[in-house]
Amino acid sequence: MERKILITDCDDAQGILAGVTGVCFQHKLNIVKNSEFVDNLQGRFFMRTELEGVFDTEALLSDLDKVLPKSHHTKLTDTGAKRIVVMVTKEAHCLGDLLMKAYYGGLDVEIAAIVGNYETLKPLAEKFDVPFHYVSHEVLSRGEHEQAMLEVINEYQPDYVVLAKYMRILTPGFVEQYANQIINIHHSFLPAFIGASPYKQAWERGVKIIGATAHFVNNCLDEGPIIKQDVIHVDHSYSAEEMARCGRDVEKSVLSKALQLVLNEEVVVYGNKTVVF
Amino acid sequence: MERKILITDCDDAQGILAGVTGVCFQHKLNIVKNSEFVDNLQGRFFMRTELEGVFDTEALLSDLDKVLPKSHHTKLTDTGAKRIVVMVTKEAHCLGDLLMKAYYGGLDVEIAAIVGNYETLKPLAEKFDVPFHYVSHEVLSRGEHEQAMLEVINEYQPDYVVLAKYMRILTPGFVEQYANQIINIHHSFLPAFIGASPYKQAWERGVKIIGATAHFVNNCLDEGPIIKQDVIHVDHSYSAEEMARCGRDVEKSVLSKALQLVLNEEVVVYGNKTVVF
Amino acid sequence: MERKILITDCDDAQGILAGVTGVCFQHKLNIVKNSEFVDNLQGRFFMRTELEGVFDTEALLSDLDKVLPKSHHTKLTDTGAKRIVVMVTKEAHCLGDLLMKAYYGGLDVEIAAIVGNYETLKPLAEKFDVPFHYVSHEVLSRGEHEQAMLEVINEYQPDYVVLAKYMRILTPGFVEQYANQIINIHHSFLPAFIGASPYKQAWERGVKIIGATAHFVNNCLDEGPIIKQDVIHVDHSYSAEEMARCGRDVEKSVLSKALQLVLNEEVVVYGNKTVVF
Amino acid sequence: MERKILITDCDDAQGILAGVTGVCFQHKLNIVKNSEFVDNLQGRFFMRTELEGVFDTEALLSDLDKVLPKSHHTKLTDTGAKRIVVMVTKEAHCLGDLLMKAYYGGLDVEIAAIVGNYETLKPLAEKFDVPFHYVSHEVLSRGEHEQAMLEVINEYQPDYVVLAKYMRILTPGFVEQYANQIINIHHSFLPAFIGASPYKQAWERGVKIIGATAHFVNNCLDEGPIIKQDVIHVDHSYSAEEMARCGRDVEKSVLSKALQLVLNEEVVVYGNKTVVF
Repeated sequence: MERKILITDCDDAQGILAGVTGVCFQHKLNIVKNSEFVDNLQGRFFMRTELEGVFDTEALLSDLDKVLPKSHHTKLTDTGAKRIVVMVTKEAHCLGDLLMKAYYGGLDVEIAAIVGNYETLKPLAEKFDVPFHYVSHEVLSRGEHEQAMLEVINEYQPDYVVLAKYMRILTPGFVEQYANQIINIHHSFLPAFIGASPYKQAWERGVKIIGATAHFVNNCLDEGPIIKQDVIHVDHSYSAEEMARCGRDVEKSVLSKALQLVLNEEVVVYGNKTVVF
Repeated sequence: MERKILITDCDDAQGILAGVTGVCFQHKLNIVKNSEFVDNLQGRFFMRTELEGVFDTEALLSDLDKVLPKSHHTKLTDTGAKRIVVMVTKEAHCLGDLLMKAYYGGLDVEIAAIVGNYETLKPLAEKFDVPFHYVSHEVLSRGEHEQAMLEVINEYQPDYVVLAKYMRILTPGFVEQYANQIINIHHSFLPAFIGASPYKQAWERGVKIIGATAHFVNNCLDEGPIIKQDVIHVDHSYSAEEMARCGRDVEKSVLSKALQLVLNEEVVVYGNKTVVF
Repeated sequence: MERKILITDCDDAQGILAGVTGVCFQHKLNIVKNSEFVDNLQGRFFMRTELEGVFDTEALLSDLDKVLPKSHHTKLTDTGAKRIVVMVTKEAHCLGDLLMKAYYGGLDVEIAAIVGNYETLKPLAEKFDVPFHYVSHEVLSRGEHEQAMLEVINEYQPDYVVLAKYMRILTPGFVEQYANQIINIHHSFLPAFIGASPYKQAWERGVKIIGATAHFVNNCLDEGPIIKQDVIHVDHSYSAEEMARCGRDVEKSVLSKALQLVLNEEVVVYGNKTVVF
Repeated sequence: MERKILITDCDDAQGILAGVTGVCFQHKLNIVKNSEFVDNLQGRFFMRTELEGVFDTEALLSDLDKVLPKSHHTKLTDTGAKRIVVMVTKEAHCLGDLLMKAYYGGLDVEIAAIVGNYETLKPLAEKFDVPFHYVSHEVLSRGEHEQAMLEVINEYQPDYVVLAKYMRILTPGFVEQYANQIINIHHSFLPAFIGASPYKQAWERGVKIIGATAHFVNNCLDEGPIIKQDVIHVDHSYSAEEMARCGRDVEKSVLSKALQLVLNEEVVVYGNKTVVF
């Protein structure tokens, strides 16, 4: 008995749910969990199905192809631990939370490697016996630096690349190699406070909440599809530094929840948005 | 074209989803929205399906009966405004919120009547032209009082009875007439602070959060299936009265959200719990 | 025995707290509650003191003047109900919440009048016997329209003007007449989604939270000092309309909490920010 | 220039604030931050003052004694890192969060040692070079076991003892040695779900929120003065295990925020409650 996750995304039409579940039934697959969503405005159908049984994958996909509208995208994924590479700069809290959860439970993930443009977090990586690759940006052009990092990352063939407070902007050349596979945590409730120093921006504006946003990275800074957001309340007595200190707990919590959703195949990217089942 | 909601609740088995959606497809009904939940511990399957099309209700239910396990409960409900009777004592905030939302949008509901054991809220009912029935408990036995209220309520044939801060305990005789149709708001995060004066209890205990719980009423005080809960943060400077004042906004918000879920047929009672789709 | 609130705002210096509390003690005034805040970056001291006793106001202010740095602003205010005028357009929920709380408790305020640029909410005002003034913007220039509204508002000499979903922009000419006395509720977590249709903007961006911001109005649209903000979580299944429907409860809650703070003299405006005691 | 924190707690009377701040001014101490609270019901005054300057501690306390009511408790504490011992059983998440924050910033604390009644978390302690003492309860009576732990703990002379998911009940003999110095994290929103397996209890009751409570330990199980509480929303689809997994992030966040407040001398115990400045 295996368990797999089927993600379907197609133009909406009558009978899709009956068609797909009928095929699954013919294949003697048990539907453990099924979630669907129809975007009525754009006439688009999304479905996530957890299946259990003995899979004849090729036949299953072929049978599904017969009952689904032509435009469909269908993905059948194994459950179980995915592999990620984490990119960092100097801040430890997000990386530490991921390492603790990968090591002691909480996230079903293998952190294959950590890549840093500073060496600051190497000792933390070593505590958990995870390879740390220091790729300084200092003597390289942006293109060369990204190329050097890509060479390291590609070697691990990660399912996802997680930017755990990696503080440099990635170029389109980098992003397209891992389209919809790079997850970033930004330390504001987007779309507010895009770019550098969001806590300083928040302090200057005098907001009464601060927050964090986990999103897929695309080619527009802090504009990618949002996976998860949360906020905490602050008041006039918080300096920008205190906002940053308190915000760290939100950042790490939002990043780890977003990653959990992605690892469970519960997130479908759709235009510049996500469907989160 | 009509829209209806199908709620199915049965022992879990392979092929139920395929069976039900197949029948809907044969009936040329479009599935606007489908949500399912399997309680694996107890082997129970729950499904809520919003259907659109031309309904041959008798044939549909008969065809569904053929594909569902024997134990199934199936309910096909019209969408559209439901009718409620609201029971109150003296506090205005929950009733006021329901009246505003029934009148100006926000809840698709007809408040057919208000029954109070005090006359205090009669002027508020009159502002919104809703009949107010004053049924004092003072000279009557508990049984007589409930009988008098039931006579008033039954006349309106409500889909649900909403206790908007009705401060007396209902007896089993009353409750069984509207089993799983009576929704109460209790001013604490249950199961903490059951019974009288929860804010006073909260103050005495020195808690740092206060809350509210909307639940169906059964024969155990404050023990019925919970629909919705929420809390707010408080501190040492709050007296029990200030907790009560601040708690009112949570109470009315939780009650109205719970009622909204119930009116949308998104709540299935299951033992002493709810499945909220 | 009277109760008054003393608000002091001055350059920071040693001994201010001792100086002020010493003067209060000499005047045999009991300090019921004292809150202070020092902005160390800008060297500014803020204090709010609730005093109880027999007040010789002139002597008190004169004695305080002797112990405070020259730059000080000091305000001594009576506690007790303040008077407001509410401006509205067509949406009822914020106004309804204010009326309920003014009438049944929850806000210590007298709603002296309601001014609408549409007649839509006149019946709601009448339910609570509050004068409604319909001042249409249709045949008037912006200046004439504001002048007409000001004439109505000034007649009531309100302590504050509350924009309860008043959907037009006020010009500097209007704003300066009620500087730091106009409170607006904006239906987004500012500074995100400034301007028109924030829920539509939120839907288009695919955010996972929506919110509301209460702020004083100044001459930059949605840029005034923020008093209170809050958010709720949403997901991909919400249309812009559903966001708007769910957002209403946050809007009214944030507006009423902000107003409560302002009425209690707990808010001090400072540059483009607020100190909220 | 030193910085110290003055905590005063006494019967309420007129002129206390003037008296205390006057003494501080005579001592040429700058008041960096001052917070006070009066419990009007019980006529009790509380104050926390951050002072900066050159301290003649003996003279200061003696001068304060002259201006304060006889019943006063006054404590003058150094700011700066406090020392704690952490007690654990098998779960890693709270300990890991404390270690990360002690090591990388976020909590101004020295974790002097970790005491475990299982050896499970020894490798985690070693990663951060913190001494781990394994004191098994297996062959010892409860009294002997606590005595053995106390001997280890006392050696480090900790300011506070933090129970980071230590899963055994402490006896009065242990507790009185560290009265109001032992901080526990309980995995429910107290007073709900006292005692063992709160997530299982929560699941059985069908609640829609789960939470965590940090409190000082006294001689009644889960009944000590509460410092901090928080909750997250759950639904019918969560098993008790999933509640426990999601609850971990709340537990560690609540514990670390409570500890931060305690370390900053912002918490005063008062009967069975706390004043949290």
